[in-house]
Amino acid sequence: MAARAGIVVTGTEVLTGRVRDRNGPWLSDRLLELGVELAHITICGDRPEDMTAQLAFMREQGVDLVITSGGLGPTADDLTIEMVAEFSGRQLSLDEDLEERIADILRPLMKRFRHLDFDAVRAANRKQALVPEGAHVIYPAGTAPGLVVPGKPTIVVLPGPPRELHAMWPEAVETEAFQEAIGGRTSYEQQTLRLFGMPESEIAETLRVAEAEVEGFDELEITTCLRRAEVEVVTRWEPAAQPAWDAVRALIAERHERSLFSTDGSSVDDQVAELLAGRWVAVAESCTGGLMAARLTERPGSSAHVAGGVVGYSNEAKASLLGVGPALIERHGAVSLEVAEVMADGALARFEADTAVAITGVAGPGGGTEAKPVGYVCWAAKLADGSKLVRDARLPGDRAEVRDRSTTVGMHLLRRVLRGEDFEI
Amino acid sequence: MAARAGIVVTGTEVLTGRVRDRNGPWLSDRLLELGVELAHITICGDRPEDMTAQLAFMREQGVDLVITSGGLGPTADDLTIEMVAEFSGRQLSLDEDLEERIADILRPLMKRFRHLDFDAVRAANRKQALVPEGAHVIYPAGTAPGLVVPGKPTIVVLPGPPRELHAMWPEAVETEAFQEAIGGRTSYEQQTLRLFGMPESEIAETLRVAEAEVEGFDELEITTCLRRAEVEVVTRWEPAAQPAWDAVRALIAERHERSLFSTDGSSVDDQVAELLAGRWVAVAESCTGGLMAARLTERPGSSAHVAGGVVGYSNEAKASLLGVGPALIERHGAVSLEVAEVMADGALARFEADTAVAITGVAGPGGGTEAKPVGYVCWAAKLADGSKLVRDARLPGDRAEVRDRSTTVGMHLLRRVLRGEDFEI
Repeated sequence: MAARAGIVVTGTEVLTGRVRDRNGPWLSDRLLELGVELAHITICGDRPEDMTAQLAFMREQGVDLVITSGGLGPTADDLTIEMVAEFSGRQLSLDEDLEERIADILRPLMKRFRHLDFDAVRAANRKQALVPEGAHVIYPAGTAPGLVVPGKPTIVVLPGPPRELHAMWPEAVETEAFQEAIGGRTSYEQQTLRLFGMPESEIAETLRVAEAEVEGFDELEITTCLRRAEVEVVTRWEPAAQPAWDAVRALIAERHERSLFSTDGSSVDDQVAELLAGRWVAVAESCTGGLMAARLTERPGSSAHVAGGVVGYSNEAKASLLGVGPALIERHGAVSLEVAEVMADGALARFEADTAVAITGVAGPGGGTEAKPVGYVCWAAKLADGSKLVRDARLPGDRAEVRDRSTTVGMHLLRRVLRGEDFEI
Repeated sequence: MAARAGIVVTGTEVLTGRVRDRNGPWLSDRLLELGVELAHITICGDRPEDMTAQLAFMREQGVDLVITSGGLGPTADDLTIEMVAEFSGRQLSLDEDLEERIADILRPLMKRFRHLDFDAVRAANRKQALVPEGAHVIYPAGTAPGLVVPGKPTIVVLPGPPRELHAMWPEAVETEAFQEAIGGRTSYEQQTLRLFGMPESEIAETLRVAEAEVEGFDELEITTCLRRAEVEVVTRWEPAAQPAWDAVRALIAERHERSLFSTDGSSVDDQVAELLAGRWVAVAESCTGGLMAARLTERPGSSAHVAGGVVGYSNEAKASLLGVGPALIERHGAVSLEVAEVMADGALARFEADTAVAITGVAGPGGGTEAKPVGYVCWAAKLADGSKLVRDARLPGDRAEVRDRSTTVGMHLLRRVLRGEDFEI
């Protein structure tokens, strides 16, 4: 049986949603790689009794490993170490080496800000050097140290800031207590399929067919979800169930040939980045307001193939920067296939690019008409050799969702025009 | 004593982080408005025993209300209704009216997709019409119905898609079972302060001073956090503790006069949108790749004051679209105060705008030098009347964080130049 783990995220700011937890998702990927099954994530505020209750819940559920994130800061509401010490029945004592190390880290940081009393800051951080007896200390990547506290469950205490948590994770994994806790692990396989241009209910129907036809279907742990306008199918299986998954995957590939665009874990962003190698792309966008260009420049190294973009939010800007004449807008409207195509032409010309994508639409909540309601969006993807895909669709969702999904469709049009495909979307 | 609530988020895709939970944060705001204290959020996958364990945990913790989100879809891994029925000891039966309603909803949706077998889809959705005895049914906003199941705790079952959950929430709140569950509520006050341009440890120091000086400090529930390069201080208190909070707030205002920019809950985005009324703003950006323009166009109605933007990702684009001459880049580098200012001038001219903000920086992970390391960013905010703020800083974080924080600094520079302020940032 695989080792099981739980994640306890602390902090009133996370519980109340003012800050989004990015550690749970990251940790769950790391656990999967280690063959450890994640059973529960729990989030509590800064109330000590709620954190203790969650730790007790994890113990009752019999998890082998608990990872906590957050609550290691200098402020009085940061209580994790104290709670974990109490929960595991261990005394706290001051680790003087650690205290000195934290002071060394703080000194240069303080130079960035004026009017700070160094001693006051150091006093505030002294509590971060308190360590439960017998715990393995992980030296800070920021200013907060981490801990691995042996026991059943073994508790790994990490800071909230993702960069610090990431930097400290490898050392935590290498500790004896961690390795002992996950000792009984099984290895799992996992594969992600991604599909675009179909509703989630169609994949549900395909899985029902698979359930009836494929022997060993029950051995597969399959989850499906809609994500940024794509359908994602993630399957985990133990090695013995490989033939069952091969059969199910073949069935999906057969029934959804045109929609299935990724079987190797790659996102459409990965694929477009690869297709753009050696090319020069420019963006012309209106309703997405910069999000399409931002998406194309999200990854390191994108400056090798992204020339830039124009956000032509006003009609004047569409005219002066993209060459969309007022007469064209007058005739077809700013949100039209015709304008999208001229925007793409404008981007190609302005940036001397060989690839362009253009988006114009009604993001809402206002501005919709009967003919062009909120969510109606037009796209054009064009290459310098004249090949092109020009499409429209009505996207569901609120303003933010329409804007985000518009960039996903833009990515898929780029992908298809660069691959020379011409499917409907 | 205030009623306490818990939120149970289900779905392997959320547990494993492939989909981000947006319902927890939204629900916690709604609970706060109702004076209900949120004690725990728990996340589980699609394994029935894990969900049952979390429901039992909530009951053991004595919460009055549990809200579940997700697991109501047509696929076999959607098990919430079944689990809740079992947990509350209620039989499931088919609600035929509800079944018909779901069929009516599906019919037009199906027109958007070809090659679909309507009866198969309807069969897949029949399980969504199974209802536990005695539960209040909330008719679907999408295709999944919600439930309010009376008991201790009362369980509110809502679908995962945020829009559907939002639409169904008011009806859930109005049910007798919900109102009974939160009967013992106390009213809380809450205020959010936002500060910019100081480290979190400084606010910690101020709160320590407050703790020593202000009577009744212990009655305040104060949380602080760093969020998108700002420090946020959120305080909750019962009416009797008002004087204590007034004193603490005055102390913060006194010690951090220049940093405190919001006491009324407004974000810098709100304030900039207000300051831009009647104006015409344009963006010139490089390392942020469109995110600054996207942020300015995030809210409805922004077309009234946003002209557009240029993403001058390549030096050629900076030259041809923003008038940044190659000689200037040669002399100072593409990431320099001088280039930032000329980019702002270019945006003013190109878009015939009266307000402009420009950003150029090293987002990383590559491209850093000793003089201009990763995270080094230059900004210029300029008005048509010649007033301007030109600044640089080295921002912490990875590529995504540097890009995001750069837009926050851009917003604050716009705010200050529009208010005629000239603080250091």
